[in-house]
Amino acid sequence: MEPAMIVLFGSTGDLTRRKLIPALYNLHRKGQLHACTPIVAVGRKPFTDGSFFEHLQTDDFLKNADQTELERFLKRIKYLHLDISSTDPASLKDAIEGLERQYSCGKNKLFYLALPPQIFGSIARLVKPLKGDDGWQRVVFEKPFGQDTSSAEELNKTISEVFQEDEVFRIDHYLGKASVQNILSFRFSNALFEKAWRKEDIERVEIVAAESVGVGTRAGYYDKTGAVLDMVQNHLLQLLSLVAMEPPSSLESDDIRDQTVKVIESLRLGSWRRAQYVAGSGKKGYREEDGVAPDSDTETYASLELFVDSPRWQGVPFILTTGKRMQARHAEIKVFFRRNGLYEHAKMNLLTIRLQPDEGIAFRFNARDPETGELDQVDMDFCHPCHFGPNTAEAYEALLAEVIRGSRTLFTRWDWLLASWKFIDGVVEEKPTLESYPAGKDGPEKR
Amino acid sequence: MEPAMIVLFGSTGDLTRRKLIPALYNLHRKGQLHACTPIVAVGRKPFTDGSFFEHLQTDDFLKNADQTELERFLKRIKYLHLDISSTDPASLKDAIEGLERQYSCGKNKLFYLALPPQIFGSIARLVKPLKGDDGWQRVVFEKPFGQDTSSAEELNKTISEVFQEDEVFRIDHYLGKASVQNILSFRFSNALFEKAWRKEDIERVEIVAAESVGVGTRAGYYDKTGAVLDMVQNHLLQLLSLVAMEPPSSLESDDIRDQTVKVIESLRLGSWRRAQYVAGSGKKGYREEDGVAPDSDTETYASLELFVDSPRWQGVPFILTTGKRMQARHAEIKVFFRRNGLYEHAKMNLLTIRLQPDEGIAFRFNARDPETGELDQVDMDFCHPCHFGPNTAEAYEALLAEVIRGSRTLFTRWDWLLASWKFIDGVVEEKPTLESYPAGKDGPEKR
Repeated sequence: MEPAMIVLFGSTGDLTRRKLIPALYNLHRKGQLHACTPIVAVGRKPFTDGSFFEHLQTDDFLKNADQTELERFLKRIKYLHLDISSTDPASLKDAIEGLERQYSCGKNKLFYLALPPQIFGSIARLVKPLKGDDGWQRVVFEKPFGQDTSSAEELNKTISEVFQEDEVFRIDHYLGKASVQNILSFRFSNALFEKAWRKEDIERVEIVAAESVGVGTRAGYYDKTGAVLDMVQNHLLQLLSLVAMEPPSSLESDDIRDQTVKVIESLRLGSWRRAQYVAGSGKKGYREEDGVAPDSDTETYASLELFVDSPRWQGVPFILTTGKRMQARHAEIKVFFRRNGLYEHAKMNLLTIRLQPDEGIAFRFNARDPETGELDQVDMDFCHPCHFGPNTAEAYEALLAEVIRGSRTLFTRWDWLLASWKFIDGVVEEKPTLESYPAGKDGPEKR
Repeated sequence: MEPAMIVLFGSTGDLTRRKLIPALYNLHRKGQLHACTPIVAVGRKPFTDGSFFEHLQTDDFLKNADQTELERFLKRIKYLHLDISSTDPASLKDAIEGLERQYSCGKNKLFYLALPPQIFGSIARLVKPLKGDDGWQRVVFEKPFGQDTSSAEELNKTISEVFQEDEVFRIDHYLGKASVQNILSFRFSNALFEKAWRKEDIERVEIVAAESVGVGTRAGYYDKTGAVLDMVQNHLLQLLSLVAMEPPSSLESDDIRDQTVKVIESLRLGSWRRAQYVAGSGKKGYREEDGVAPDSDTETYASLELFVDSPRWQGVPFILTTGKRMQARHAEIKVFFRRNGLYEHAKMNLLTIRLQPDEGIAFRFNARDPETGELDQVDMDFCHPCHFGPNTAEAYEALLAEVIRGSRTLFTRWDWLLASWKFIDGVVEEKPTLESYPAGKDGPEKR
């Protein structure tokens, strides 16, 4: 990969310690980080390099790393003690440019904003003077990308005052999963499925992301957000985009993203249900959780029936479902193929793309039971880790590598984001009555 | 199943002891044989019931059977000492009718001719007086169904003087395998594959039946026969019929067989290669085998490129390959799907139906290697015994059950047989120069 300085804002937070540093370490260990990839960790806690390294190593991951390799890796890291809210832009500029001279690694810079979006404005102000004509400057950050169309536009305005759209890498970590990255390859390199990927052959598509955990320590944030904003607007709509998109004119990032945007722009809401978990299976109800309002109307479960109004998908329902405190943690995409005529008892063929906890692809088909002579449903299965090995890259590892490579396929483009918010605004507006489901069950009763 | 008397001609031979009796025992054990299913074993060796049972039990299978159940099963069997060539038809009639009165099980009779076809004439003469209007009479026998069109017609004439076509059950034991019976179900109950089962989507089909054994003790017979008559005319053309047939108008036996006949009638030979194994891998060559002529021109390997001249299959090659002393024993059907455009390095999708030694279905597709980002070929697999259990019925068990049920799907109808001989006559006529391959290799060198 290219040389680049990685500047981590929010380097003393959880994301840095638990995801970013392990991902960077793995890239380092695999020899994928250029020798010229210094990591400048910016934080307002008064760490020295040494105490910052100790702080990083409170995470099990680095504790268990090879010590020689780890020492080499830590040499890349420089802790920069700095309070964003009060620092003068010139002093950050001086510090960074000083380090640049010291490392002699060129001018490429990757700014990672591991901080809440409220602070993005301050950072933009700090970073602006560092933008130059030499090398590239890229900015990486994660959701929430706003709460609705207008807050998203506002956030985007802040960022775009400093960065061009092609310098902005909005992370949806779902897109970094190996099995999610494979969706595109699977769809467009396997003729048998590619040809059948249309309303004439597919009856419906289900996309599920179920969590068994409750709201945990995020209650304060979650209670203002809910399942639709937390999961549907980003992860589930991204998956839907990949499943429903038209073939791109090439495999270039922007050709692919041109098509994913079109999916969102042609979305239509059929109906949706929202629900909240109540006590069950020995777990307390959502309203009993610390930090949740006792009369909270926030949904912890959402199931949306959507339609993609395109010639390919006319009339095919896409059912997107997500929830907390459901029976088991699992995420998968199920594609149900229409049945044909000769065998009266034939069931639909079903392709399942498993995203978590185990990654893989299965195809369910009808086979003759040799004892009874009747049809039975059986599965062909592909187990992703069995073939590619269990140590496939973590999502963040893949995503950081893509940023440094400058490949944008896995990142959310502004027009996609805007389209998704416009659609989600409509969904939220149509808010149906809140239902309930007991913790440990897969949502409210079927209707 | 219905009550019926099973009359086994050739009951002291290997087929009876090793295949038929174990199959009947299994049907008995599973409760699938009607209580009224006496088995009359006809033979010219002077066995008593007792010594015949002892003879049967020289086979490991019955030796290991549950003894209580076996005793119950043996009560069904009556040994009838009789020399077919010299017996007066009236005396067989008397004996059988005597047993019929004794068992009071009605008039249904299944005659199993476990004997070489040269003797069928004598048996027909014996059995003719037993044919009556009460109950059904069916006759079952196996290949060779002749050596060419005219000998097949002659044999059929002998049989048809006594039996109607719908009373004749010609066994191709390949059709009794669970995975072969599944071909029809697979093709016509799985819409995804059914729709792609045509020249627009399939590039070629390969059908392979490879044996690792040599000619063994059958040299005398085999040297007059060769791979085309021994394997292609029957087993491989049957598999081809199932793979290439049009959808039948129903699942009735004759609707299915109407379609398999059409496949054979529209066959066209592209080209073929024939070869004989020479010494290799520590095994002697074919011409060194006991019972083989030292200048034998008989092929032990054949590979035929065929075309089915129908709108569905125009231009799609079907490659049928079989041989002895090949690398490993395996039989399978491979369907290669045409590739599509977006990914330059995408390989063809491949459906493999495994028939032996392990039964199953696999689909090979392209997936993204998470480390390199390049496409890799991976498999989804369905393992037949893993799902349906290892004790699926042996081929003969399934076939005998079908005869008693009167279901004809798995049996070769005369018009199919005639069509296959007419086609094979043409193949044999075009005899290419004999090539060679070392024992243990998968045929002659590719050209």
